[in-house]
Amino acid sequence: MGAAPRIAIDAMGGDSGPAVMVEGAALALARNPALCFRLFGDESAIRPEVARHAGLAAAAEIAHAPETISGEDKPSQAIRRARTTSMGLAIAAVKSGEAQAAVSAGNTGALMAMSKLALRTMPGIDRPALAAMLPSLGDNDLVLLDLGANTECDTRNLVQFAVMGAAYARAAMGIDAPRVRLLNIGTEEMKGTDELKDAAAQLRAADYLRMNFDGFIEADRLGRGEADVIVTDGFTGNIALKTIEGTARFVADLLRRAFTSSLRSKAGFLISKPAMHLLRVHLDPNNHNGAVFLGLNGIIVKSHGGATAQGVDNAIGVAERLVSHDLSRRIAEDLDNIRAHAPTAGVAA
Amino acid sequence: MGAAPRIAIDAMGGDSGPAVMVEGAALALARNPALCFRLFGDESAIRPEVARHAGLAAAAEIAHAPETISGEDKPSQAIRRARTTSMGLAIAAVKSGEAQAAVSAGNTGALMAMSKLALRTMPGIDRPALAAMLPSLGDNDLVLLDLGANTECDTRNLVQFAVMGAAYARAAMGIDAPRVRLLNIGTEEMKGTDELKDAAAQLRAADYLRMNFDGFIEADRLGRGEADVIVTDGFTGNIALKTIEGTARFVADLLRRAFTSSLRSKAGFLISKPAMHLLRVHLDPNNHNGAVFLGLNGIIVKSHGGATAQGVDNAIGVAERLVSHDLSRRIAEDLDNIRAHAPTAGVAA
Repeated sequence: MGAAPRIAIDAMGGDSGPAVMVEGAALALARNPALCFRLFGDESAIRPEVARHAGLAAAAEIAHAPETISGEDKPSQAIRRARTTSMGLAIAAVKSGEAQAAVSAGNTGALMAMSKLALRTMPGIDRPALAAMLPSLGDNDLVLLDLGANTECDTRNLVQFAVMGAAYARAAMGIDAPRVRLLNIGTEEMKGTDELKDAAAQLRAADYLRMNFDGFIEADRLGRGEADVIVTDGFTGNIALKTIEGTARFVADLLRRAFTSSLRSKAGFLISKPAMHLLRVHLDPNNHNGAVFLGLNGIIVKSHGGATAQGVDNAIGVAERLVSHDLSRRIAEDLDNIRAHAPTAGVAA
Repeated sequence: MGAAPRIAIDAMGGDSGPAVMVEGAALALARNPALCFRLFGDESAIRPEVARHAGLAAAAEIAHAPETISGEDKPSQAIRRARTTSMGLAIAAVKSGEAQAAVSAGNTGALMAMSKLALRTMPGIDRPALAAMLPSLGDNDLVLLDLGANTECDTRNLVQFAVMGAAYARAAMGIDAPRVRLLNIGTEEMKGTDELKDAAAQLRAADYLRMNFDGFIEADRLGRGEADVIVTDGFTGNIALKTIEGTARFVADLLRRAFTSSLRSKAGFLISKPAMHLLRVHLDPNNHNGAVFLGLNGIIVKSHGGATAQGVDNAIGVAERLVSHDLSRRIAEDLDNIRAHAPTAGVAA
């Protein structure tokens, strides 16, 4: 563990703007008083928000950015405004070393494009991937990637995602040799696309990788604790993640209907409130907020646009953990290890 | 509505074999005494099961099949055994007109391959699709297809799936102009693969189709009642369906843990039992059992391998409804309609 990091915050991203982002920083500071921040955005909007939270002003510098990236901005438009927008300047602070990580709740496509252009991908990585931690019934959370950064992926991409996902699980959860699987529509070797079959063959053969590769896993086993890292293309990952969110909400809505269907059910609901609270805590996406772009020369964390201050605090916590456990160095070591074993071809060569 | 149909049952498929399939038929007969069955499989195993259910013997003929398709049989191996297996003979009964539909809980890949070879796809359809009805918060269930029959799909396939899915919703739920959407990772026109974008453009332009095409939908909105039919490729559909199953089970497991975490919670649980029962009824996959291969010259229903007798009854109910509402004729009419409007190119031409 190094010293507590300085974190760049895009204070203008997200559905609720500076109020929620600044309150998230205040919660993070209360949790870890050694943290410090640079808050990027409209100074006149940020300053009063900072003033609401005792002690925050001393730990948070405000860096004015005249413009904001909107949810409608296309990535190609966004990258032209890297030097004037809160998002672009937060990323630049990571590049210059002024901050050790950046957190933004803004437009994902723009964040990806601007981060890639400013920070570049690590040597040996063709494309960065977006990874998140999901709740699981096992002893630890589940790392799922890619979540939408890459709509279509080839074999090399999938293998590189596996290497980066394993490094993430080691850094964020301290698992020495994470159990890695590829998401597929069956577990037999002949199932799925050619890209999946080839990626499985390469990962199975590369026994020098710091992971336990266990083949394929089906989507009904996602949260069962049978894998630490599950790898898929960005299209499928986005579908799986959003299906989880939608189904959890669907069940919660059914529960609400069921519990308000009769006086007796209402009474039962009131009595079981502590249990329901426990459930809500477990399912609240804010408690798993903070997805990471893996494979860049720098740590960029994406907070959900609709996250609460608690969710923003969580995303800042993800950034802290990855800085103090040196995620970038771990991925770089793995890539060196691969080059040593497969200098010309094969895995991620 | 025509007369009650005769249904061919592959009595050997599924995890529990003849006992559950035969009990499912008995339940269906109790629900609709006009039904009759042909049960295909090992006569010595089926006969004692039939004898357990009063009145079933009079409505169910047993047709001996010496062999069974196993879960491990590859489709290419299965099709060579069409004349000796319970699955192959049940399909043949639909082809010959001896039965109006077949229900099997066996190996999906084998069922698809054998059905396609025996019944052939309808003119204008390149590939059949597997469609299921899912629970929704709207007024009716949701038709989701393809669920794994086609791992990779092109624009033509997706457009044809939309046409067949709409016909299915009309036949099974009586919706005159079903709201149809394509599953995607965003709702903006520029999102997703080229196949999805092209399919959306074709469906939007083809205003003569008997559906309301509403563009894209994201996976977190699947069960919200915003669409009657959602179309996707078989890989993505399989991932989405299994993610729904897995998440529902995940939440149920969390609930169980939460409700047994303290005496107070247990008491609350007991009081709310009717509400929990309602929830279980809604989420039990047996209540939505019975997926249909659309686009074949004949009705083949796939029952889940792990379905209970109640689930098998449900799958038989799906077959009954599609026979009495003449699904095949409806799809054929839609295809004729398309040929009339776009005789050389365009939608499903």
